[in-house]
Amino acid sequence: MFSQRVDGLRPSPIRAILNVIDRPGMVSFAGGLPANDPLPYWEGSVPPATLQYGPTEGDADLRAAISANLTDLGIDAPPERVMILSGSQQGIDLAAKLFIDRGTPVAVEHPTYLAALQVLRFYGAEFTDIASLATDPGRSPRMHPGTTPRGAGGTLANQARLAYLVPTFANPTGACATEAERDTIALNCLRNRTVLFEDDPYRELTYDPCDRTPITSRMTDGPWIYQGSFSKTFAPGLRLGFLAASEDLFTQLAIVKQATDLHSSRLSQHIVYQAITSPAWPEQLGRLADFYRSSRDAFEDALCSNIGDLTTWHKPTGGLFYWLRLRDPLDTRDLLTTAIDRNVAFMPGEDFYPGQPELGTMRLNFSHADAADTDRGLHTLAQILRDWRHTISACTAR
Amino acid sequence: MFSQRVDGLRPSPIRAILNVIDRPGMVSFAGGLPANDPLPYWEGSVPPATLQYGPTEGDADLRAAISANLTDLGIDAPPERVMILSGSQQGIDLAAKLFIDRGTPVAVEHPTYLAALQVLRFYGAEFTDIASLATDPGRSPRMHPGTTPRGAGGTLANQARLAYLVPTFANPTGACATEAERDTIALNCLRNRTVLFEDDPYRELTYDPCDRTPITSRMTDGPWIYQGSFSKTFAPGLRLGFLAASEDLFTQLAIVKQATDLHSSRLSQHIVYQAITSPAWPEQLGRLADFYRSSRDAFEDALCSNIGDLTTWHKPTGGLFYWLRLRDPLDTRDLLTTAIDRNVAFMPGEDFYPGQPELGTMRLNFSHADAADTDRGLHTLAQILRDWRHTISACTAR
Repeated sequence: MFSQRVDGLRPSPIRAILNVIDRPGMVSFAGGLPANDPLPYWEGSVPPATLQYGPTEGDADLRAAISANLTDLGIDAPPERVMILSGSQQGIDLAAKLFIDRGTPVAVEHPTYLAALQVLRFYGAEFTDIASLATDPGRSPRMHPGTTPRGAGGTLANQARLAYLVPTFANPTGACATEAERDTIALNCLRNRTVLFEDDPYRELTYDPCDRTPITSRMTDGPWIYQGSFSKTFAPGLRLGFLAASEDLFTQLAIVKQATDLHSSRLSQHIVYQAITSPAWPEQLGRLADFYRSSRDAFEDALCSNIGDLTTWHKPTGGLFYWLRLRDPLDTRDLLTTAIDRNVAFMPGEDFYPGQPELGTMRLNFSHADAADTDRGLHTLAQILRDWRHTISACTAR
Repeated sequence: MFSQRVDGLRPSPIRAILNVIDRPGMVSFAGGLPANDPLPYWEGSVPPATLQYGPTEGDADLRAAISANLTDLGIDAPPERVMILSGSQQGIDLAAKLFIDRGTPVAVEHPTYLAALQVLRFYGAEFTDIASLATDPGRSPRMHPGTTPRGAGGTLANQARLAYLVPTFANPTGACATEAERDTIALNCLRNRTVLFEDDPYRELTYDPCDRTPITSRMTDGPWIYQGSFSKTFAPGLRLGFLAASEDLFTQLAIVKQATDLHSSRLSQHIVYQAITSPAWPEQLGRLADFYRSSRDAFEDALCSNIGDLTTWHKPTGGLFYWLRLRDPLDTRDLLTTAIDRNVAFMPGEDFYPGQPELGTMRLNFSHADAADTDRGLHTLAQILRDWRHTISACTAR
């Protein structure tokens, strides 16, 4: 199941020792801990332990709080199988290290999260289409709007060692998998012993009713990693996320994390723990969803009035992105320089495909620009698309 | 020079776009940035940007402050070649990813930092002894007290793609390389086009005069990485370090970091920036060195009175560790369980060797336990050593 490099993976002897040094009466000459006394007095007045080295897996109180949330979602994640991450990008890196050698088949959505492709590809992944894992006899092989099943996917995806996906408000498409699709993916992963990696950073940003029970909650007997992030619900600048994993994977992931950054910022952990266990937290999440729902609705209107004749889209039920398809399927990468010259930035959709892209797609974030900028930006984009179509027609006519 | 996996390494298209989105007048639909408005009001009252996503390389003001320090040390490190790390363990991981395939020769000290061995080995490094890189004709091949040159080292180390070392107050030995040794290592790295990786977390913890000009300051024309940490001078719990690198390496390291954690905590960066640019900082560093000098001197006395008849050591001129050699070279790993049962923890020295260890060494941290605990702990250790020697003599006599 693991990558070849895991053959050389051994827990650090320090790990074993660090587990006992907090025992009452223990004199530790073992670690390299600075003394507590000269550590800076810090105006935020955090507990002194926050400034010291800490456990690789994360601070116990935060792990317990996350465990309680995951249990509510139906995920089998006791605190000892919850790990704090330095942002959820780190979870992808740890899993890739653990599972991927050159040529290891990995099933992903087409298109999928760009930075996941980047790190999976770096370790040598060969991509297959996850659509086939979402397919059972008698159903159409479409998992997401905008996903085209690949011919050989069925066979290849069955051999995938890892299946990475964002089933709830995918990046870039904003799509949300149905319960039936989630059932089938879990079933196929279990059947093939494929490690399910469910990346779930947008769960709390839900604007309309939709299916969103974690696929992981169906992985009763098989390897899985589930991860989430505080970047959307609290603040990205603190770089804090978490994962939970099945028993066969957790310890290995912790050892790999130790070799990566020892542990995540305890200050960030302390701040996020205070926030998510405060009585005001559920209300804060509600306000956040309301805020972004309004942004989405305003963006929908701005799209309709500015660019509706040139593109099509599904209104996203959550997340932070619109996925546009041009009526003329041209490579939007060719547009980007012109757009930036005219002060509008967007993400060409083609970059989100693991292999040959479908042309004529764009990812637009609707959560950052204000109403006036959005209007101006979309108006400019529409102009560029019209000019461009005109140029191409002229070329063709020549 | 790079690992095979670098063949697939491409900068993320997002990187290129993120570079322009701060331009005045730009409307960005490109990133996945949350809106600023609903980000939490945070009692520490940091600048709002601190809570948002930030640049992979780190915040500009902190990079500039570090660059100024490195320039004072004679290192060619303009701000654009300084990168903020999530702790200096991350720098080792990034370099390992970038350079090491299965079987890549890497020169290290024997013994050296355990967690560096762990990550280098994980990527497939074959270790050679750096002692040979510190050797020139007419000088003895000893780099550090406690380092035995390996027979074949001369040839193998010459082929090393990477040379990783902690020349200033090494972990675990506390040794500090002489200027002559530093000259020779730089010369040999330049000659062999070996990437020099100088890890320098203990520089500010200097207790007696000693040579400590960075080896990197001699790398005028060759590949190098220099890294430091705020874990010893500020607080480990914030997980903040930095690296600088030669021009041919920096961009690749930044791309690899982006795929690892996007960027480091901006809150940690903000706090550390405030600290190290405050007028009180030089005085704080002085106080820190005074504090640890006293700890070391007290530990030296405690060693002499408790365990001096059983072990030998060099008094370290900096850093956080004593390196003890038993007069009877027994494997100290066999002692650890007994010691922990009796409430004393130490690090067996054997674990710090990349290959076959020399027996009979221990690493003792002198910065964490207070005076009474230190005395009690060393007294217990001495008792265990005496009992153990007695048992072994009895066994031998049988």
